[in-house]
Formats: sequence, structure tokens, C-alpha cells
Amino acid sequence: MQFKSLNELRSAITTAPAASDHFADLAASRQNTLTKPQGSLGRLEELAIWLARWQGREKPRLDRIKIIVFAGSHGVTAQGVSAFPAEVTAQMVANFAAGGAAINQLARLANAELEVIPLQIDKPTGDFTRTVAMSESEFLEAVNAGYNSVGPDLDLVSLGEMGIGNTTTAAAIATALFGGDAQNWVGRGTGVDDAGLQRKAAAINAGIARHAGNLDDPLQVAARLGGRELAAMLGAALGARQHSIPLLLDGFVTTAAVAPLFKIARGSLNHAVAGHVSAEAGHRALLQALELSPLLDLGMRLGEGSGAAVAINLLHAAVACHNGMASFEQAGVSQN
Amino acid sequence: MQFKSLNELRSAITTAPAASDHFADLAASRQNTLTKPQGSLGRLEELAIWLARWQGREKPRLDRIKIIVFAGSHGVTAQGVSAFPAEVTAQMVANFAAGGAAINQLARLANAELEVIPLQIDKPTGDFTRTVAMSESEFLEAVNAGYNSVGPDLDLVSLGEMGIGNTTTAAAIATALFGGDAQNWVGRGTGVDDAGLQRKAAAINAGIARHAGNLDDPLQVAARLGGRELAAMLGAALGARQHSIPLLLDGFVTTAAVAPLFKIARGSLNHAVAGHVSAEAGHRALLQALELSPLLDLGMRLGEGSGAAVAINLLHAAVACHNGMASFEQAGVSQN
Repeated sequence: MQFKSLNELRSAITTAPAASDHFADLAASRQNTLTKPQGSLGRLEELAIWLARWQGREKPRLDRIKIIVFAGSHGVTAQGVSAFPAEVTAQMVANFAAGGAAINQLARLANAELEVIPLQIDKPTGDFTRTVAMSESEFLEAVNAGYNSVGPDLDLVSLGEMGIGNTTTAAAIATALFGGDAQNWVGRGTGVDDAGLQRKAAAINAGIARHAGNLDDPLQVAARLGGRELAAMLGAALGARQHSIPLLLDGFVTTAAVAPLFKIARGSLNHAVAGHVSAEAGHRALLQALELSPLLDLGMRLGEGSGAAVAINLLHAAVACHNGMASFEQAGVSQN
Repeated sequence: MQFKSLNELRSAITTAPAASDHFADLAASRQNTLTKPQGSLGRLEELAIWLARWQGREKPRLDRIKIIVFAGSHGVTAQGVSAFPAEVTAQMVANFAAGGAAINQLARLANAELEVIPLQIDKPTGDFTRTVAMSESEFLEAVNAGYNSVGPDLDLVSLGEMGIGNTTTAAAIATALFGGDAQNWVGRGTGVDDAGLQRKAAAINAGIARHAGNLDDPLQVAARLGGRELAAMLGAALGARQHSIPLLLDGFVTTAAVAPLFKIARGSLNHAVAGHVSAEAGHRALLQALELSPLLDLGMRLGEGSGAAVAINLLHAAVACHNGMASFEQAGVSQN
């Protein structure tokens, strides 16, 4: 798929297919036969049913999990918004390739394939305080890269990102989409001090002022204030939806990246679950805005898809119980 | 080890060995060299350091994990406190043996050995509204069984239980140890209705009145109001501590079972982490009373050690990152 215009992309978002209730109903019925008080596995039961719904299988499987980490470079780093230098983006991409990052360890543990997709990391986006982060065609190119990274045969897609400066980008998107003071959406990212926090908010305010009049369209927000890795995550989320593949979201940046989908069509993230709530300041509020309830709350704030990767283990637990447990009848256990 | 008196047991609790800070310090230093912003793995970093501290290894391992599920029968079921009939305890022990329960699936996923230890399940404890649940010697027998179930060579012990009626037992212990109205400690267990909740509170109030004057000693609380599987979990927690093995707690019943240790010596649960907070009404308050912060909050309320077993996957994630990640120097990544 190659989206050639924002209108074409918007049309795909608003017409994204829903899942049939049929397999969710079958899975829910199965849950109620298993040797446990009904509902006693809590969220694990909901997860099994969610996977069944989107995979279209009474017994979901997690044999082909893909973690996709998109990397991009951000012109707004010129505003002094990150504790780390911009070259760390490329260095960390090399670290992913060498297997040394957190996400490498977590992907292996989760029995997931890890694909890292750098998006022109030698060519930062425009500094959104002065110009558009991406032109419409640059934005669509990144969206298409994300969309096409999701093949039809996956059991689960889990998203992540790397991009020095991108918590500022994410907070700018959140501010533009959901309003409120930029101060409420910025956080410490990789570890800025109070002055850095002020610079982040100031950059966002400048960006919002610079692009005022073009921010009513969520896709314009994503293009003008966003980043290539965020655009690609938006595309990947849409691609997963087109193939009816369950989607796991990571932290603040990932959530901000897919937020335009929700703003365009509320149901367009129905195939998504939030892997965790990160320690980044704005994430909890952003999840609430998207009506997402996170699986984990472990104070993580690394990005790379790391929180979602940890959450994959909860999905494995849900599937193991759903598929492997005996029924009351099979086990000869009395019911209440 | 065979504890022959409550005094002997109490003495072991108050003299339980602490861990050296040495390996925790080494592990914390290692964390700060890894390719991530310091602290950005949140609770995963704390877990790695906690495992290092109690295992006495800079790089902890989780090769030998044992989930121990104790089962017992409760005389207080005569008061109509459970939604399921008492014979389900034995039926579920058979289900564990056949591999059909949730904990079987979750133990396999967590790469843990599962041991199920039934404790005279054909001989219920006394109904604590009328008599002692256990005599001193019956209580010590169960404590010793638990203590001796923990060998010295384990990397992690994770506790669980099965016993129709035991959320009432657990709430009775919580009420006796921490005060407040029994109403605040009872929950729906396997699924009692409002009238069942009232019967649970009434049974606890009757038990507290029946044994008033003998409840100042937390071990007397555990013997008079408790159950064999709870006494065994207390013993197992103490055994793990004696061998300096990290301990993972499960839900409301498990937490209540080890609460007497905390009441006797505040530091005696320093080797323990709460795997989750369950949906059982009193669990959150009980964890707070024991100064424990749960890893997961998934609305689970099954028991069997199931919540702790899911949490083991978080420990695997913590160890995978701690042991497997590259340092900034190794990866050639710039620091802030």
C-alpha cells in the first residue's frame, strides 16, 4: 500500500474494518468452562478474548509476534530539549543491531521477532518551532513505511521507537490534539532537569503558535509537529488493523503517535491494548484520553518498545491459561 | 528443621539473617553502566538488585524456580462462607496433578517447577467460631512442612494455596493482626453474594470473640484462626529467608499467611516481593499494612499462586536486561 495523499490515508482510517464478535463470544464461553471461578483470572481473561476477537480464533496463538522499533531524528533537538546528544539515535540503532539494548533481551524473552527500522536518521525532521517537521510527502513516506512493515500473517504486533527528542514531539502532538497547557504534557524524557522541562514546553508553545490554523486536522498535527518514527507507528497501527492483527502499544511516544487515529475515528484503536503506563509525565493522561487502560505500571520510561515487550509475557500467560486449562467437566471439579 | 514450640519458632523469626548490601551495591553499579538512561527500567532495575541482594550474586539467575502450592481444608466452611463446596479442594489438588489448572499453565510459562503439597485435606481444621483451628502441635506440624519444602539451592520461591474457605481464614487473621471491622477485610472469594459476605464477617467476629485474650501473639492468631496451608506458607517464607532465597507472594491468602512474620519482626519479609494485588477486597490494604508494593494489578483473584506466577515473568525480564544488556562503553553510546 502507498497512501498518496492525506485524504486517501484519512479514508483508510475511517473505513478500517471491525472484528466479528463471533470468535470473542466463543472465547468468552470457553473461559466460563475452565476450572476457576468465573472472572477470577481478571484481565488475563479479557486479553484472551481480545486476542481471539482480532485473530478470529477461539483459541488464539502467539507464535508469530513482531516487535517493530522505528527510529527517527528530530530537528527540535536544536532547542535543547534532550539530556542526550542527537547522535545517540544512530548509536542506539547500532546497539539494537548488535543485540545490546534492553529491547533485544526483552524480545528474546517474549519469543518475539525484533525488527528495527531506521527512517532517514541522518536527515532530521524540520525544527517545528520554525518550520514543518515533515512535508506532506515526507509524512506519507514514513506512514507507508510503517504500514508496509506489518505483514498479514502475524499473531501480534508490538510497537516501539527510538529518537532523541521525541518525547517533545510526542508532547507537542498531545497538546495539539487534546489541548491544555504544554507544561502538563511534557516530562523528563531521558532525564532533563527543570530548565530542560521549561525548554520543552517553550518549544511546544512556539510550535503550536507557528502552526496555528493548520492543527484542526490530526494528520496535519502528526506531519507538522511529529516525527518519522511516530508517523511510521501510525502507519503500522493502521496496517495491523487492516490485517486484523492485535496491537500492543508501548509508552508515551508510541501512544502519541497513534493518537491521531483515535481523533479521526474513535474505534480505530479498538484492536490496540496499552502494554504499560510509563513514568513519563504525560502518559497516564494520554492513555485516559484514548480510553486505554495499561497492563503494567512499573515506572519504566525507556522507550524502544520495552514496556510493551514486557507486557507480551502477560499475553502469553493469558493464552496459556485459555488454551491449556481443563474444563470443570474434564477435571471432574464441582461447580458452584 | 522441626520447630517444637511457638517460642522456638518465634526465636527463628526474630533472628532471621539479613542480606549483605555488597551484591546489591554491585548490581546497582552495573545497572548504571547499561545502555539506557539511569533508572529508566523502573521497577525492573529494583527487581534485579533485589534478586542480586538475596541471591548474593551481582548477576542473579532464575534457573531454579519453585512454585509451592499448599492445600488445606477449613472447618469454618460449616458457616457457609464459600460459593464452592468444600470437596473442591481435593478435586483441585487432583486437577493440579493432572496439569489442568491455571497454575500448571503459568508455571510452565514461567519456567518454574510446580510442587503441590496437600496438608491433611481429608481432615479440616477446627471451625474457629467454636474451637481452635489448629492446636499448637498441629500448627507447628504445618509450619514445619512448609519450612522443609524449601531447599537451599533455589533461585526463587513463589507461594500459592488452595483451600475452599480460606479467604475467610485470611480475613480473620488480618482482622486479628491489624484491627478494624471484619467487614473491611472480607471479600467475595470464589464468588459469594452479599449474604455470603455477611456470613464471612459474622464468622470472623464470632472467631475473634471466641479467641479474645489469646490474639496478642501473632503465632496464636495463625494457629487459632488460620489454616494448615497458611501455616505452611508462613513456614516456607521463613525457610526461604533462612536460605536467603528471594520470595514472591501471591494474593490475599498468601499475604495474610505471612503477615504474622511481619508483626513479629518488621524486617522478616525484606526478602519478599508482592507478585500482584488481587481483586479480593482486603488485599490492597493488607499489602499496605505490610509495606509491600505489588508488581501487577490485573484483577486476578484465583489463588493457586497464579498472580505470583505471572509476576515471575517480570523477574525474568529484569534479569534478562540486567545480565544481557551492553554497557555504554561496550556499545559506543554517548552518555549524557
